[in-house]
Amino acid sequence: MDKILLSHGGGGKLTRKLEELYLTYFENEKLRELDDGAIFDGYAISTDSFVVNPIFFPGGDIGKLSVCGTVNDLVSMGAKPVYLSLSFILEEGFLIQDLERILWSIRKTCDEAGVEIVTGDTKVVERGKGDGIYINTTGIGKVLMPELSRERIKPGDLILVNGPVGMHGISVMVAREKLGIEGKIESDCAPLTFLLSLPPGVQFMRDPTRGGVASVLNEVVKGMEWGVVLYQEQIPVTPEVSGVCELLGIDVLTVACEGRMLLFVEREKADEVLQGMRRHPLGKESTIIGEVVDEPGVVLLKTPFGTHRRIEPPPGESLPRIC
Amino acid sequence: MDKILLSHGGGGKLTRKLEELYLTYFENEKLRELDDGAIFDGYAISTDSFVVNPIFFPGGDIGKLSVCGTVNDLVSMGAKPVYLSLSFILEEGFLIQDLERILWSIRKTCDEAGVEIVTGDTKVVERGKGDGIYINTTGIGKVLMPELSRERIKPGDLILVNGPVGMHGISVMVAREKLGIEGKIESDCAPLTFLLSLPPGVQFMRDPTRGGVASVLNEVVKGMEWGVVLYQEQIPVTPEVSGVCELLGIDVLTVACEGRMLLFVEREKADEVLQGMRRHPLGKESTIIGEVVDEPGVVLLKTPFGTHRRIEPPPGESLPRIC
Repeated sequence: MDKILLSHGGGGKLTRKLEELYLTYFENEKLRELDDGAIFDGYAISTDSFVVNPIFFPGGDIGKLSVCGTVNDLVSMGAKPVYLSLSFILEEGFLIQDLERILWSIRKTCDEAGVEIVTGDTKVVERGKGDGIYINTTGIGKVLMPELSRERIKPGDLILVNGPVGMHGISVMVAREKLGIEGKIESDCAPLTFLLSLPPGVQFMRDPTRGGVASVLNEVVKGMEWGVVLYQEQIPVTPEVSGVCELLGIDVLTVACEGRMLLFVEREKADEVLQGMRRHPLGKESTIIGEVVDEPGVVLLKTPFGTHRRIEPPPGESLPRIC
Repeated sequence: MDKILLSHGGGGKLTRKLEELYLTYFENEKLRELDDGAIFDGYAISTDSFVVNPIFFPGGDIGKLSVCGTVNDLVSMGAKPVYLSLSFILEEGFLIQDLERILWSIRKTCDEAGVEIVTGDTKVVERGKGDGIYINTTGIGKVLMPELSRERIKPGDLILVNGPVGMHGISVMVAREKLGIEGKIESDCAPLTFLLSLPPGVQFMRDPTRGGVASVLNEVVKGMEWGVVLYQEQIPVTPEVSGVCELLGIDVLTVACEGRMLLFVEREKADEVLQGMRRHPLGKESTIIGEVVDEPGVVLLKTPFGTHRRIEPPPGESLPRIC
């Protein structure tokens, strides 16, 4: 590889390759875990830049997304988001009224997530050197669930998700490509702090953003003594998302969510956790979609016909700039 | 103002206007101070995005700059930089070998500053929607000098700087505009962690980046009972920088530094602090350039003729994209 391709940012195989490159330069214990962030002194830190196109889409905008993305990364580390930094790269000519609309959306989402913007920065680039607005947020969270760890997952554990998958990626793509799809597809973009006050039993969480469920689960199983099986019929997908995926030949499991979390839960406590999730508006469609099995390092999909199909991480180029 | 102008990112008056806009949306105690960062639980946090053009310039590159910028913001808050997040926005087609050169530079500067990259992110945008590479770093520092505060500054205090000013901005501009200036002008870009172990007497520090000494000092005096006088003859400027500034009609006091710090020091301790600074390679040209006086909220320049001229913050458009 000698030039950056769009796929390097897609969350798939080329993104992993890039991460390996980074590791050769910044080898250290905290980074090596390749989590969505790092832990220090009881705090978690996570960073994300957002380049979504279009910046306004059904169910959200780049501002809301910038808060949710980082907030949910912290939540996945068992940390309650407390502070956010906010950094803009604006293109000359960007409308101040659009900026204000985004600021308002950031503020509303911060309030919802219980997080405060404490510091920021703005850079402006010449017309044609950016694309309206890019945002970076870095979040600091107080670790409430230090026990969460991939190492605790074991065969028999169940996998839960808090609602239909693939809505964010498909909503952005429909908005961008002006596909004129019938029926409204809204992004699931939402801050998931409610997951920090569930009943005990959660072993590990990960939000299926870039690369979707397929990418995230393949990362989780990598190098482990166990694997996962997803029950295809149990994975919640709205008819609209399912329709667009079929139309475009996209596997919904590779499509990004921005308000969904995959939870690995001890089998005997799964029901209580599930009920806890369903009590929150952002979890009322929670369901069990799979389990951890005794097959090392694989992600399998159990089809309605009872067969098993292996789910590979997406190469990465299918849906650029969805976050 | 209805559209974003380059000047909104210049560190001058329009940047202040934008900050006021942000405050209307994110009003909170930590942000209101408009420092280069915020403090929580003994830690400081600071964020910056870097869009410098060209990405390689004499004395540095966007990687080194991304580390120094955030490190020096933390140092100015009296905090020892410990962790950095690192987020890239890459343009499709960017050369991997340039990325590697930048990664190497980041790594070297991190080692020099004693800071670790603990988490990161990469996004890729289509060709023509970026400009090669943009970087965001967010830093966490352990507060070692919690006493530093603008409130402690009083008439009689002296103002120190650790070397010639304006070198960064001019070096980037000469490289960008291919001015073909004789004599090498190198950026002063450097991590200034050595300033955290000076003898006592430092009341306040601020790094004169965007908008230069003029902009930063005007921010510092704003709303205060006192002002500052700079002794024009004492301000260190290299002949090369001075020459370019004259040629282009730029006031060197409005030009960004990336390895300089302005220190407000108690008069009776200034000599000891100065000697302490000079013991470090990055401070061997340290000098006293001014003092705090009993004139509320002004920045004055005492010329060699004994007259006083008021220094205003730059409007902001003179040198875009120098960081």
